[in-house]
Amino acid sequence: MQMTSENSILTTKFAWPLGYYSDSVHVGLKPNQDDMGWLYSKVPAAAAGVYTTNQFQAAPTKLTKQTINSHHQIQAVVMNSGNANSCNGPSGWADAMTMQKIAAKKLAIDPNLVAIASTGVIGEPLPMAKIQAGINHLALSQSKGITKAILTTDTHPKTITLKCVINNRPVTLTGFCKGSGMIHPNMATMLGFVVTDAAIEGSQLQKLLRTTVDETFNQITVDGDTSTNDMVMVMANGLAGNESLNETNEDYPTFVTAFKQVLTKLAQEIAGDGEGASKLVEVNVTGAYNHTEGQQVAKAVVGSNLVKAMIFGADANWGRVMQAIGQTTAHVDVNGVRVAINGTQLVKNSVATEFDEAKVAASLKNSQVTIEVDLNAGSAAGTAWGCDLTYKYVQINASYRS
Amino acid sequence: MQMTSENSILTTKFAWPLGYYSDSVHVGLKPNQDDMGWLYSKVPAAAAGVYTTNQFQAAPTKLTKQTINSHHQIQAVVMNSGNANSCNGPSGWADAMTMQKIAAKKLAIDPNLVAIASTGVIGEPLPMAKIQAGINHLALSQSKGITKAILTTDTHPKTITLKCVINNRPVTLTGFCKGSGMIHPNMATMLGFVVTDAAIEGSQLQKLLRTTVDETFNQITVDGDTSTNDMVMVMANGLAGNESLNETNEDYPTFVTAFKQVLTKLAQEIAGDGEGASKLVEVNVTGAYNHTEGQQVAKAVVGSNLVKAMIFGADANWGRVMQAIGQTTAHVDVNGVRVAINGTQLVKNSVATEFDEAKVAASLKNSQVTIEVDLNAGSAAGTAWGCDLTYKYVQINASYRS
Repeated sequence: MQMTSENSILTTKFAWPLGYYSDSVHVGLKPNQDDMGWLYSKVPAAAAGVYTTNQFQAAPTKLTKQTINSHHQIQAVVMNSGNANSCNGPSGWADAMTMQKIAAKKLAIDPNLVAIASTGVIGEPLPMAKIQAGINHLALSQSKGITKAILTTDTHPKTITLKCVINNRPVTLTGFCKGSGMIHPNMATMLGFVVTDAAIEGSQLQKLLRTTVDETFNQITVDGDTSTNDMVMVMANGLAGNESLNETNEDYPTFVTAFKQVLTKLAQEIAGDGEGASKLVEVNVTGAYNHTEGQQVAKAVVGSNLVKAMIFGADANWGRVMQAIGQTTAHVDVNGVRVAINGTQLVKNSVATEFDEAKVAASLKNSQVTIEVDLNAGSAAGTAWGCDLTYKYVQINASYRS
Repeated sequence: MQMTSENSILTTKFAWPLGYYSDSVHVGLKPNQDDMGWLYSKVPAAAAGVYTTNQFQAAPTKLTKQTINSHHQIQAVVMNSGNANSCNGPSGWADAMTMQKIAAKKLAIDPNLVAIASTGVIGEPLPMAKIQAGINHLALSQSKGITKAILTTDTHPKTITLKCVINNRPVTLTGFCKGSGMIHPNMATMLGFVVTDAAIEGSQLQKLLRTTVDETFNQITVDGDTSTNDMVMVMANGLAGNESLNETNEDYPTFVTAFKQVLTKLAQEIAGDGEGASKLVEVNVTGAYNHTEGQQVAKAVVGSNLVKAMIFGADANWGRVMQAIGQTTAHVDVNGVRVAINGTQLVKNSVATEFDEAKVAASLKNSQVTIEVDLNAGSAAGTAWGCDLTYKYVQINASYRS
């Protein structure tokens, strides 16, 4: 039997797993680019989702949650950008239902097997004639246009394809997502999709998604805001032919690792392509009292506007990192904290240490910045990702609708 | 006996209350302006303070807290800008003690009657020779230079003087403060000073300060960051000759009102002069389940980067206000929320209502913006203040030390 260590997980060029079809189209929700599309599996797939915690959960989000939760199985997802169908009251809910129904009709499947996802401006009615025209036009192809059609202020599509071997069967996992504002805690702050041909029960997939999201998407922050619409969804159609996966399967750890790699990569891409971002920032916390506190501190540092602006300015003003740590309620040895930026130690025992400031400043100009924090309060760790705060963030958000 | 309704509280031009002296000097902590000063009362004054909740509380903050808490009485405050004396370890603590001692010696009073306050860059040793030279130079004058000497990135001094009558005696309250970054929750996110010649016990003053700060300074946010240094301090030297104030005094409500007016004005000034701010934003929440939730929602809206950028861009993108409300855990009637901007209703029953977009957009160009939110979930209210997010905020914070 083939070894399935982590080494056997390979990143390949973009491809849909077995049995998935997709297409995209321009219907006029955005000016000049494709703004609608779908994803279809030739057989019903096990499905799982996590959803925004915002109290004004948008109609499509609520409908998809309800659909997936009813039986953890779907066969298609219809998506649009340019309009969030959020805060539109009862008619927004009716529009979401209609969107689900007309897609189901076109695909000749049960509406309860269709998820929908919308992103864009809040509070404007979904132009249903355009949605209807779009769905009429969509075909079953191997196009990857959908990865672009769901974007809003993102600068580029975010995709990943991994291949691994599970029970001697080749398995593919493909993920794609969109960011890039309103990215913050409590999950569901973007649209993320993972499709695989692996076989796994819906409830098992839901459990795995929940755990993995806490370590990935829930640890990124762009601006501290949580959208009304966002979600991460997974489909697993089983066409790879492996035994249905659960903890007792000897190759389950390989699948878990690959799955986490997909979500980590997508989360990092979202952070690095945050609105106006020029740099991806990773914060690694060690010496935490427990994992929760490690995660909390990592996210507090990466989410501090002052730290973000400092990184944009390539200024090794480590006091701001201390300030961000100090505002959390995590256990901290206030006289024993260590801080390093891009591998250079700046703070030891909570006070400045000798360091080559020019070297650190130069390294802060890289497109990736890593901040390490040792709280000296335990042996747990945490990681979070974010981006710098730039003029462009302000520009984008001062005129989002114009 | 004279009526002491709210009407009898008058705003006057800046003046120190009876028995207060002040001075300022340039010692080289900042390039070209006064960067040190003091405030002295000719008799010991009742004193109260509230302090940052940041775990890395700076040495001067910790020392002042300890000093005031020991007996709720002080006679002088020495202040400097340009250096926060924060994250400097044991030698930072020793420097704070020395600063307190040399000021006490110069004034010939007990060190335990001297508070100190520092603001500026974190993590650089306080240049004690300069501090010593500065204290040597300070005199007892009626100068208001101290209101300028404590500034960092503030664009102008923030002061207020009110006069009222308490027990037939004229009483003066004078407040001044500095902002303007790292302004957020949990108090103590700036330096604020209120001095009065009213007579009031220290413990009573502490209680009043705590309550009033929760309604004022703790309801402003500039960037969500909480500094290591900041505090609000009050001195009341009793030279006005009124009976010592407490709840049983018939004029106590007048003093409470005047005191709250001082703190409200300073808080608003800090919010409106937030780093890079071009507008003061006030959010008034009604229909809240309770006051705490009203305050929480008001602050969530005013603190949202997306709302702040939208106000900078004068874009009536009300979906962002909804998004900010929805991310709180406050009770919300998700189908019954009302939102108005500068008096124009934009949202009714949680969906868009007809409004004159050009009129709202034009009003968003004013230097003051008011957002009203009705949660339709109760009868409590809340208010918070903040500012817009501008290119200048990013610019200032990308190069704070340069």
